[in-house]
Amino acid sequence: MKRRALITAAATAGFAAMITRPAIAQEQPALRWRLASSFPKGLDTLWGATQFISKRVADATDGRFRIDAFAAGEIVGGAQVLDAVQSGSVECGHTNSNFYFGKNPAFAFDTCLPFGMNTRQQNAWMVHGGGNELIREVAKKFNIHTMQAGNTGAQMGGWYRKEINTLADLKGLKMRIPGIAGQVMARLGAVPQQIAGGDVYPALERGTIDAAEWVGPVDDEKLGFARIAKYYYYPGWWEGGAQVSFYVNLERWNALPPAYKAILETVCAETNTWMVAKYDAGNGDALRRLVAGGAVLRPFSNEIMEAARKEAFALYGELAQQHEDFGRIYKNWNEFREKIVSWFRIGELPFDYFVQAQAARR
Amino acid sequence: MKRRALITAAATAGFAAMITRPAIAQEQPALRWRLASSFPKGLDTLWGATQFISKRVADATDGRFRIDAFAAGEIVGGAQVLDAVQSGSVECGHTNSNFYFGKNPAFAFDTCLPFGMNTRQQNAWMVHGGGNELIREVAKKFNIHTMQAGNTGAQMGGWYRKEINTLADLKGLKMRIPGIAGQVMARLGAVPQQIAGGDVYPALERGTIDAAEWVGPVDDEKLGFARIAKYYYYPGWWEGGAQVSFYVNLERWNALPPAYKAILETVCAETNTWMVAKYDAGNGDALRRLVAGGAVLRPFSNEIMEAARKEAFALYGELAQQHEDFGRIYKNWNEFREKIVSWFRIGELPFDYFVQAQAARR
Repeated sequence: MKRRALITAAATAGFAAMITRPAIAQEQPALRWRLASSFPKGLDTLWGATQFISKRVADATDGRFRIDAFAAGEIVGGAQVLDAVQSGSVECGHTNSNFYFGKNPAFAFDTCLPFGMNTRQQNAWMVHGGGNELIREVAKKFNIHTMQAGNTGAQMGGWYRKEINTLADLKGLKMRIPGIAGQVMARLGAVPQQIAGGDVYPALERGTIDAAEWVGPVDDEKLGFARIAKYYYYPGWWEGGAQVSFYVNLERWNALPPAYKAILETVCAETNTWMVAKYDAGNGDALRRLVAGGAVLRPFSNEIMEAARKEAFALYGELAQQHEDFGRIYKNWNEFREKIVSWFRIGELPFDYFVQAQAARR
Repeated sequence: MKRRALITAAATAGFAAMITRPAIAQEQPALRWRLASSFPKGLDTLWGATQFISKRVADATDGRFRIDAFAAGEIVGGAQVLDAVQSGSVECGHTNSNFYFGKNPAFAFDTCLPFGMNTRQQNAWMVHGGGNELIREVAKKFNIHTMQAGNTGAQMGGWYRKEINTLADLKGLKMRIPGIAGQVMARLGAVPQQIAGGDVYPALERGTIDAAEWVGPVDDEKLGFARIAKYYYYPGWWEGGAQVSFYVNLERWNALPPAYKAILETVCAETNTWMVAKYDAGNGDALRRLVAGGAVLRPFSNEIMEAARKEAFALYGELAQQHEDFGRIYKNWNEFREKIVSWFRIGELPFDYFVQAQAARR
């Protein structure tokens, strides 16, 4: 290209860029954002959600608002998404808030708590029970606006090298289980380990740990745990529905045109269902393949379930005393939870229970 | 500005410009659509969803795409929404597809079938199991494009003037229960009645009918059934999760700019969760008030549940023989259903069941 042509193009392009701001009320700015994901590309549902969000937002804005997603480790590590969005080094992120339990334990409510709400109950609390407002007050302290943007559904209870029948079997058990769930496990005598995704398999293979929890059949199958720790327990009582969140740097959020805010909100809400629907659609086949490959399914015993529930709520009581944010949100969350669980006991579970019992009998 | 600086600026601006479409392409047409709802304004969750959709779409388009919603009876009756959208007398509608079971029995799959999938399972089938594509082929024959846009969750089993313990108690029972559920009830010896919303209460009060099903606690409370038929049964085995659909006249849909299509799709998907979350958040309190006001909760007996399930699937087998569309979709739906129910039996229900059992014990 000739220099003059380049300069002319420069002037034109510069002008075009300038008038992209509301010269006419109908025009929206061209934006290009970077998104840091907490998930590797191999977890194609968790990672795939960012692709879904990017495409939907681009389509809804005729390509004017683009979001380039980067997997865990490409810009920052999977557990550094909050910091990257807080500082503005990326405009947005896709992550689990309970990764940041150490910064503020109230972040757990934005993902899930052991023996807490399931996916639908969490949605009801967030959208119509005041959850979103409460969580956003916490996120604001970290210069972040947050929205629901995915859920795994109820997770499995992890992979164990030996059977776990009684509380005695948990004593001294070295298990990869992070966050608040790890704290409950510790109260039961286990030794929780914080191990990043890629290191879990070798640690379990070498016997450095005795057990590891991950997600559910679709994602667990990829890591091949069945070969080295065949006992596959359920339910994952610490994650009855783990929400994934979309973080936006607060200044970037506040500066967004109202239409872009509405589009991001609605796309994140759609993604919340898109993700759990994808897990729900895939987990049945994945579980069947896992069992065919040697995984041995085992339910946690009532002894373990009841002791774990007792310790979980004892822990919440302590945290509520120690942390103002946790205490305030816990009160709202727990009241809502008791109410919605009592409704599901009549409205939802008898239907589901009958249908599954019939299916099991055939 | 020095030339080199200008060239550098040119390169930067050029990049910005590349992602900026020509000004003219950014403008979107101003549209004003009329929406016919199947629901009266009193059902503020079902009706409220259309208000939610209108606001979101307007916000996402800076007010350029407006949808004016009209309640049942304002333009057409609640069960005439399909006809109004098909003919183009309104651009779009919000309705239950199973109202049109008489036009094509395959429409039932777009709402729910007795002993079929629950809300989350329906979402998984529609979004990731091929459901949307199959339903749209049917809707296309009626000049309609359809999208998921709400769900009531599992409904209650209705109000009865006397206790219903055995199959013998169903013989000759005159019950307001429409569509495919009514057909199953008829096979059990009941006499299903098709009665529009506003006429149900007087019919039950006068004893013209012995029982009536409606929705769930939030909506049932408004109609005051507890005063005249105090036995409130659960679960509503015919509606384990009743989907609501957004219909668009096919020519209108095809003529929409791609960005508006994306916005309508994502807003309807958000509404799908918004609605069930609102019911889930409100049903607990409504049920408590109903019971305090004299409603007597009763579970359907196993005898009735098992006989109803058997008749339901016998009916599906017959319909699959008689109707090509029903048969084709039933095969896909049933395979998906069996797979996802087997997954929920491990992944979801043991968590939910334990949590609700603990709650019931306290």
